Order: sequence, then structure tokens, then C-alpha cells
Amino acid sequence: MEREIRVGLCGCGVIGEGVVTVLREHADVIAARAGAPIKLTAVADKDPARLEIVRAQDPSIALLDDAFEIPKRDDVDIVVELIGGVELADRLVRAALDAKKHVVTANKALLAERGGALFALAEANGCDLYFEAAVAGAIPVIRVIRESLASDHIRSVRGIINGTSNYILSSMANEGAAFEDALKAAQEAGFAEADPTLDITGGDAGHKLAIIAGLAFGARVLPSEIPTEGIEQVDPRDIQYARNFGYVIRPLAVAERLRSGALDLRVHPALVPEGDPLAYVDGALNAVAIQGEMVGPSFLSGLGAGAGPTATSVAGDIIDIAKNSLAGAPVRTWHLPSEGDQKIQAIADLSSRYYLRFSVQDESGVLAALSGKLSDSGISIEKMVQDADSGDAGTASIAMLTHHAREGDVRDSLRAIDNTHLTTAPTHLIRIVE
Amino acid sequence: MEREIRVGLCGCGVIGEGVVTVLREHADVIAARAGAPIKLTAVADKDPARLEIVRAQDPSIALLDDAFEIPKRDDVDIVVELIGGVELADRLVRAALDAKKHVVTANKALLAERGGALFALAEANGCDLYFEAAVAGAIPVIRVIRESLASDHIRSVRGIINGTSNYILSSMANEGAAFEDALKAAQEAGFAEADPTLDITGGDAGHKLAIIAGLAFGARVLPSEIPTEGIEQVDPRDIQYARNFGYVIRPLAVAERLRSGALDLRVHPALVPEGDPLAYVDGALNAVAIQGEMVGPSFLSGLGAGAGPTATSVAGDIIDIAKNSLAGAPVRTWHLPSEGDQKIQAIADLSSRYYLRFSVQDESGVLAALSGKLSDSGISIEKMVQDADSGDAGTASIAMLTHHAREGDVRDSLRAIDNTHLTTAPTHLIRIVE
Repeated sequence: MEREIRVGLCGCGVIGEGVVTVLREHADVIAARAGAPIKLTAVADKDPARLEIVRAQDPSIALLDDAFEIPKRDDVDIVVELIGGVELADRLVRAALDAKKHVVTANKALLAERGGALFALAEANGCDLYFEAAVAGAIPVIRVIRESLASDHIRSVRGIINGTSNYILSSMANEGAAFEDALKAAQEAGFAEADPTLDITGGDAGHKLAIIAGLAFGARVLPSEIPTEGIEQVDPRDIQYARNFGYVIRPLAVAERLRSGALDLRVHPALVPEGDPLAYVDGALNAVAIQGEMVGPSFLSGLGAGAGPTATSVAGDIIDIAKNSLAGAPVRTWHLPSEGDQKIQAIADLSSRYYLRFSVQDESGVLAALSGKLSDSGISIEKMVQDADSGDAGTASIAMLTHHAREGDVRDSLRAIDNTHLTTAPTHLIRIVE
Repeated sequence: MEREIRVGLCGCGVIGEGVVTVLREHADVIAARAGAPIKLTAVADKDPARLEIVRAQDPSIALLDDAFEIPKRDDVDIVVELIGGVELADRLVRAALDAKKHVVTANKALLAERGGALFALAEANGCDLYFEAAVAGAIPVIRVIRESLASDHIRSVRGIINGTSNYILSSMANEGAAFEDALKAAQEAGFAEADPTLDITGGDAGHKLAIIAGLAFGARVLPSEIPTEGIEQVDPRDIQYARNFGYVIRPLAVAERLRSGALDLRVHPALVPEGDPLAYVDGALNAVAIQGEMVGPSFLSGLGAGAGPTATSVAGDIIDIAKNSLAGAPVRTWHLPSEGDQKIQAIADLSSRYYLRFSVQDESGVLAALSGKLSDSGISIEKMVQDADSGDAGTASIAMLTHHAREGDVRDSLRAIDNTHLTTAPTHLIRIVE
């Protein structure tokens, strides 16, 4: 009889339920592509209600309340880790690899924090450890970097890799909503978690960027080392000014190898020119733009979250591992051997163009004084507009785009300006990425 | 000592030279990702001048004038077929597989015409046969369909997969050039071959679409079975009218599974709405939009031709095969088992919206007569404009968009109209894809 590949699922929330559905409803195409049937044999979750849903779909699946029982089972070849978090998931994945089970995980925090050790353990145990679903949902960024572009020297990866942030900024842009209202609407529409902190502060994108930097540059980077800013400070006025200058504000993650050899890694909202492919990526879509030395520009977009897209990525990994297993050969080398601790450029040393918005007294001489101070710091202005504030009589807003400048110099200059009587509120700075 | 994977290259034109360059200049990253060094040991080409270029780069490479010597060599594990054409390439790939060599090819015509037999031969001989570079250059559409989306039921694939046609239509749109002038400019810029027939008639895109249909739907389709129209009939006036209606004209290839189970396959210029991601794909870029049942919309773009992008795809395949070989396990099952001969929808049965441009006598009653005839055939008009022709006194142009209609009915109606005195030239029809 033809061999069967058996899967044990740990964690049956939204994504887990999607995996159950895909493996059942698409069993035909999956068996055809994998070369053998793939059978879900066991599911573990602490919530009995979730297990009941699985039972209703297929009573032959073993249901467990303890995920750590899954790696112990003889009827499981591949363990799918969807419990999330770092400590518990780390223990679970180690238990699976120690039991010589292959692992598929969608856990970006785990891989960003502990990836190096886990990949070494997988290799030592002759097991595959796949993780396409950990970065950008349905977008096959992992596979493209490590397989399609395997021969190329990657110069930069720029992406919109947090769908919640993009959804919020998009609705602020499209409906003129304030940040708090857009966040609330995103939560009601199911595009933001009850606790959206990790998404809107950029932490989630930082986890994903650490994984991308590892794949693209062989860099061993912890998320805490990546300069990260969230989207909370973006004001509807910034979106409006950006639009008038011909830009869209998107939540970006940037990884770039500089000529010096150092890595420029950062997560922050950014002004993107209207003609850029990333500018068209609206709502809950994710996108990744890769620039390779030989391949040139490569652009991928798709849904970054949700049961169907993410479960499709998990299932793609399961099928790949099944093919490896059926061929009798797991552990195809994947990672670039780490180039060790690579220098990450301090954000103060970044050379960038900037969008600045000053709140000033609406009186003569302010603009001259302000531009004089910028000029003294070597910062030159490319475009500028001044508006009287509608809400606040006697004050005005000055929005501008600068030419390239060193961020440390810009920050120093803004600090000095904000310490004078010229500005009435802290100046807003948003980087331009082009 | 670590094993080495050895490559023999057949055909050293633009792409071949790119492969030589990538394997040499990126040897470090390639060895790291493959898990062993990859060495180009032999190159065959009929043109001694091309071989001299290789010799100047690396004198240790064996140089041959007969590609059929490559599969015979003991120092070749992977044969890269870049000689092009069908008959000779078919014999060469068979010779390589019979000699138990793995094969990488960029030859879309070969795979479209003979793929089924060649894949069976590869499997029977325990060899890998990879072909990412055959479709859309740098865009990893093969890998994405057969790996990333392996678990999904694909609903449709729509793409701009001929860079020459897109370059020509883009410069017609951007510079208002006539077709012949845009073609000449494309040839001078190196974006069109001296003989561009296969590109501008849609033949090249048809080859690629046949391969895509095989991967996405398990369909065994010959290029000759795909309704194909080239871009030669597109007139600058059509581009202008399309723009005024809010559309861009792009050279599209469409593969879609209809509810009936039949396949809608076609290659033709099409009106694409301005907001569609495909509308932004300008110049020599290629793009592929995939719609999957679970994964939703997925979009990929990149350079569709050129030495660097295509050689990167070839090198990605070489690395993948090297990993299979090093793991001791070639022949990972790839193709969907063919679902046999699937029904391809006749183009007359297509339901679509259409752009029509009539050349008419500029006299009263013509528009009423014309719309009456369309209405009698069940074709209803969504939008319409009439202009007096600047060049030709006494004639006028009527451009319109129709609602959905059966193409056979539209064609019958246009034939009847063009047989009357109402039109002064054959009516132009371009399909709308949205």
C-alpha cells in the first residue's frame, strides 16, 4: 500500500481550524502533489469547544488537551506548532525534534528569538523545520528568498508585513479617520486583535524582519536590535500632507545591505511615492519587494493573515516535507550559514529623506527662523507648505520634505528647534522610503 | 572532501552567458545555499566566439561545439539545456535523461509541446527536470504554483507573460507611438528579437500558458489548442479610448477553471481596469495574478527576460537539484497527475465584456442603426463615445464598452454590421478582463 504521511496539530485556533479544513477539503489535490495521502491523525487544544469542531468534521482524529502529547505519538510524522508564544512553543518544538518528528510552525516570535538553536537541533536530528506561514501569510517570501533567488546576492527587502497596521493606515487615508477610530473599526472588522499592541507598535513586523534578515543576509539579529516605530503617531494631517506631496504612508519593514557591509534594518511608517508598487498595496494586503543583484526587482503581494491564506502556507510546508520524507531525504540545507554578528547601522547614522511637520506660531519670521536653523544643521528643504491651523487660532502647520540628511543631525536639529519658542508642539518626523 | 555538483551547459547565448556569470560570481552564496560547491565543468555552443568568452572567464571549463557531447561526460551531473527550438532540444534532453543526468531547461516551446513525455522519462530514469526559467523569467510562478500553493484549488491565473508585447504596448501608451514604430524602438532597445513574430502574435505567451495550465489544472493542453491573438491590431486610438474609459491595454494570458469544469484559456490584448495590479505592470516587466480558493489573490511581478533574471531562475533550479542530489533523493513528484484531456471552452462561448471601435460614416442615424443592430443581437452598451475622425473627413469613430455578452453573438453581430454600409472599415474588438 502507498505510504501515508501523518500530521499532528498543536493549537486549533483560527489558523489551526483552517489547516484542518484545507487538509480535509483539499485532500485530493494534496495527495496528488505530495505523492501520497496526508492524514491529520491528532489535534491538541486546551479549549474543548475547538476540539468539538474537529470531532464534528472527522471523528477519527484523536483529540487531546495537551499539545505535548502530540510529539509522543507513533501515528504522527509531522508536528504543526500553532500554539504561539515563545517559551512553551520552544519546548514543544524541541520535544518534537527530539522525537524525530518534522515540524511546521507559523510562530514568528519563536523563530525570531530562538531560530538559530532550533534549526541546528532540527538538522542534528535529521528533521525538517519549515515556517513559510510565519512571515506574510500567503506570500511565499521564505520560499522565494531561499529557493527562487538562492543564487543571488540580495540587496534589499522592503515590505508591508503587518496587515493590521496597513489596514488602519489605509482606512485613515481612505476615510480620513483618526488613528483611534480606525483601530476600533479594524477590531470590529476582525482585522485587529483585542490587544493590538504587537501589531501597531511594529513588534510583529520586527519579528518577521529578523527572520527575513536571517534568510536574505545570513544575519543573526534579535528583534530587540531592530530600530522599530509603530504607527500610533501617524496623524490624519500627515496622511493628507503626504498625499499632497505625492506620497502614501505605509507601515514598512526594511532590510538592506549597505555598501559598508552593515545592515540597515528598521520598522516604521514611511512615505512611499505614489508610483511605487508598495503604494498600491491597500487594506489587509501584505507585500514584499525584493531587489537582487542579478534578478533585479521582484514583487510579491497577497493576503497577510486569515485562516485560508495562512493555512495554505502551512499546508504547502507539510506537502514539501511529505515529498522529502517520501523521497527518503529530509534536511535539505536551507539557511545561509550565519555570517555571525553583522553590524546593524544605528538609526542615527541612517541617510534618508524626511517628511517633517512643525506646529508653529502663526506669525511673521517663524518660517525664516525655522529654515535657517535647519540649514545651519546642513538639512536642506526640497518642498514646503504652510497652512494656518483651522482648529487653533494663532497657530500654523509647516510640512516639508527634506533632501537626504543624516538622521542624527535631523533629530538634533529638531530637538533644538522644539526647545525654542518657535514650535508649539513636538515636531513630527516620518522617513521617506523610495 | 565535500561533494561537488557539476554542471554542463548546452547553448551559450545571452542566457547561457548569464548562467556562466552567476555560477562564477555568486559561487559563495550558491555553495552555501546548495550545501556544496557547484562547478560549471563544460559548455557547448556552435559559435566559437561565445566559447572564447567563457574561456576568458575560466580556462578550466571544457569547451565543445556539439551540445550532444555534454550528456556523455562523466564530469556532468546536471545538463542545462538552452539551445532552444523543439526537435533538437527534445533529442538533447532525452539524451541527458537517458544518461541519468538531471536537466534544467528554459525552453517553453519544448515543454509546451513535449512536456508530458519528457516528465515521464525523467521520472522513469530517476532524474529531476526543472524549468522555472521557461515561464516569466525571474518570476517564480512555477515554484509558487507547485509548492507554495500546492494545497489549494487554483481558480485562475492571469498574467502578462510576454515582456516584448508589454514593452511595445507600454511605449504606444506612454509615447503615443504607432505599433510599427514602437516595435522598431523595442528592437533597437534590445527588448524585441530581430524576428519578433512569436512574441507579438502571442505564440510565446501561448507556450507559457500551456505550461501554466498543466501545473495549475493538471490539463494536458497543446499551444495550438489555445485561442491566441497578438498585439498587432492594437491601434493608438484604442489605447486612447481605453484610457478615457478608465482602462489600460495589456497583453494578457488567462487560464481559468469555469464552474462547468471546462477551462477558459486564451492569449490576447485586453482592457484591464486602471485599479487592477496588472495595470501597473509597465514596460518589460512581467506579472502573474493567481486566484486560489483558500489563499485568495496572489500577485507576483518581476523582469520577464534578460540574462540576469533568467539566469537566476536557472541557477535556482540547479541549486534545488543539487540539494536533492546531496540528500540522495531526486524525483520529488511535481506534476498534478494529468486529469487527461480537459475541455477547453471555445472562444465563441466566452462570456465577457468587450471594447468595440466602429469606423462609420459621419452622418445622422448611423449610431441609432448600429446600436439597434447590437441590441437585436442581445448586446447591451455600457458606455459609448463618438468622435469625428480628424484625418478622414466624413467619417467618425464610435468606441464603446459592452455589458457581458457571448462572444459568438458579438462576432456574428459585428460581421453583419460590417457587411452593411454603416461601417467604413472592419470593427475592432478587444476583450475586457477584470
